[in-house]
Amino acid sequence: MPSLLPNWNDGAGRTAILRFVARVNEAGSPDFLPPEERIATFDNDGTLWCEQPLQVQFFFGRDQLKKLADADPSLKLRQPYKAFLEHDIAIIKQEGKQGFFEVAAATHAGMTNDEFHLQACAWLAGAKNPLVNRRFIDLVYRPQLELMEFLQKNDFRIFIVSGGGVDLIRAFSEEVYAVPRSQVVGSSVKTRMETRDGKVDLLKLPELQSFDDREAKVQNIALHIGRRPVLAFGNSDGDLAMLQYALSGDGPRLGLLLHHDDAEREFAYDREFAVSPLAEALDRRDDLGITLISMKNDWRSIFPDEGSTFP
Amino acid sequence: MPSLLPNWNDGAGRTAILRFVARVNEAGSPDFLPPEERIATFDNDGTLWCEQPLQVQFFFGRDQLKKLADADPSLKLRQPYKAFLEHDIAIIKQEGKQGFFEVAAATHAGMTNDEFHLQACAWLAGAKNPLVNRRFIDLVYRPQLELMEFLQKNDFRIFIVSGGGVDLIRAFSEEVYAVPRSQVVGSSVKTRMETRDGKVDLLKLPELQSFDDREAKVQNIALHIGRRPVLAFGNSDGDLAMLQYALSGDGPRLGLLLHHDDAEREFAYDREFAVSPLAEALDRRDDLGITLISMKNDWRSIFPDEGSTFP
Repeated sequence: MPSLLPNWNDGAGRTAILRFVARVNEAGSPDFLPPEERIATFDNDGTLWCEQPLQVQFFFGRDQLKKLADADPSLKLRQPYKAFLEHDIAIIKQEGKQGFFEVAAATHAGMTNDEFHLQACAWLAGAKNPLVNRRFIDLVYRPQLELMEFLQKNDFRIFIVSGGGVDLIRAFSEEVYAVPRSQVVGSSVKTRMETRDGKVDLLKLPELQSFDDREAKVQNIALHIGRRPVLAFGNSDGDLAMLQYALSGDGPRLGLLLHHDDAEREFAYDREFAVSPLAEALDRRDDLGITLISMKNDWRSIFPDEGSTFP
Repeated sequence: MPSLLPNWNDGAGRTAILRFVARVNEAGSPDFLPPEERIATFDNDGTLWCEQPLQVQFFFGRDQLKKLADADPSLKLRQPYKAFLEHDIAIIKQEGKQGFFEVAAATHAGMTNDEFHLQACAWLAGAKNPLVNRRFIDLVYRPQLELMEFLQKNDFRIFIVSGGGVDLIRAFSEEVYAVPRSQVVGSSVKTRMETRDGKVDLLKLPELQSFDDREAKVQNIALHIGRRPVLAFGNSDGDLAMLQYALSGDGPRLGLLLHHDDAEREFAYDREFAVSPLAEALDRRDDLGITLISMKNDWRSIFPDEGSTFP
């Protein structure tokens, strides 16, 4: 195996990445980028970890909702809670990604940020993907862990920019991705500050603050990062605006799009995945200068070995 | 001069800082903090640089407004624009900090984020404080530059959390404070994504997204950083919530409050500064465990020498 990106097969994708990093490293060249300009943004669901049969956020929300429904059984009869509880994918797909994020958010209302964090960590430590019976956090993509490490070694600052809830991702971003919590951008709910016994906490409210998808990804990149990324990596139409934003800047740019075309080792889907389709970005990739990464051809392995010790 | 924090006089303030850093560094102690927990938040106006006679944001907004008024003289007759243009501090104080942030924000509407950044950099390179005839960026506090550098050397990650506009601070945070743009949190306006000639940009809108003061500082810390700071440094009641939030956590904590009591070398003000008073925090500091830093007694020098080369 080659020493750089060993789980990336030799091919156009790996070559594009290595050439891009070589370009920005070339001292004295007009393409050289100082470290502060080396901003890379990665989508999370479907780009850094498995999003089938549904995004992990859904399972977390459902499990939280189950607890609430034990206390208030009337929830079991009301949509969209009913669909969540019964794991009715058809209805959930109808509600769309934002719909299910809102339901999930509602299940966390009244919790402090610190309480949420502890619950998310506890849940992630055990929760499994029902299709493959492995923990969600073991279904991160090994080639992407390698890529992020490689970029960090080359002075890139990596940000995760996800439609998923920012605080759920922050519960594992440091241990699993080596990305600081402050470099995670995601969907969020409003909060209210409360002082109890002289202690200041933030309570989560059942009200959406930002659903971080499509154009909102670009707006939130500007808000959180304050700089146009030079590299963006996504896997769905929800990432297209972010890819275009990165590619619209001057100087060296790299836009990468992961294509789930590996039914044998992971899943094969694109246009038909209602919750988060890949269609427009697939059609426009050549015009926009986006490099397509084939999971099947470009990746030597998909998942890390069993036995990770998170948290 | 001592080798650590040479522009801090020996005294309770300097001692509190050195003891705090020693505590979090002590391997094996229950107070030891891993690097990811070492989050320090600093207010900007009046904490890191001079905010008299008014916050720098005001002067930037006024100069932008002058350009607009040249094109549309009717602005010169309407409040609060009139007060801005005439530098009528009494009226501006009446409008309050948020009022003048909103006016300033309105002057940037329609500009792309990239255009704003270039204008802010150009303005900062020359704009001077009218009271002392030195550039605003030369009126940063030397002891604070030392403190931030000292903390960074001790693996702290520093965030600026300001009521000022986030993108104005980002225009100098890296060169002047050595704080990456992504570690600046501040007031912000809404943006709209636009695609022109295939290029994606964000346009600033004349609508406030977040006025980052008081409780909003705590909410924005949670949103941007995702972790409770262990050290917070402010200088007004607008920073009190942030200080309380930092001090409410478990383990070692340090809350610092700068008192402008040095009329000779800078300015002496607290309760009477209508735009951003220091009153409640001053009264409650002992109960809350906040360490008061006296500019007069704790700081050996205030400003860097003349001749900095920003940008």
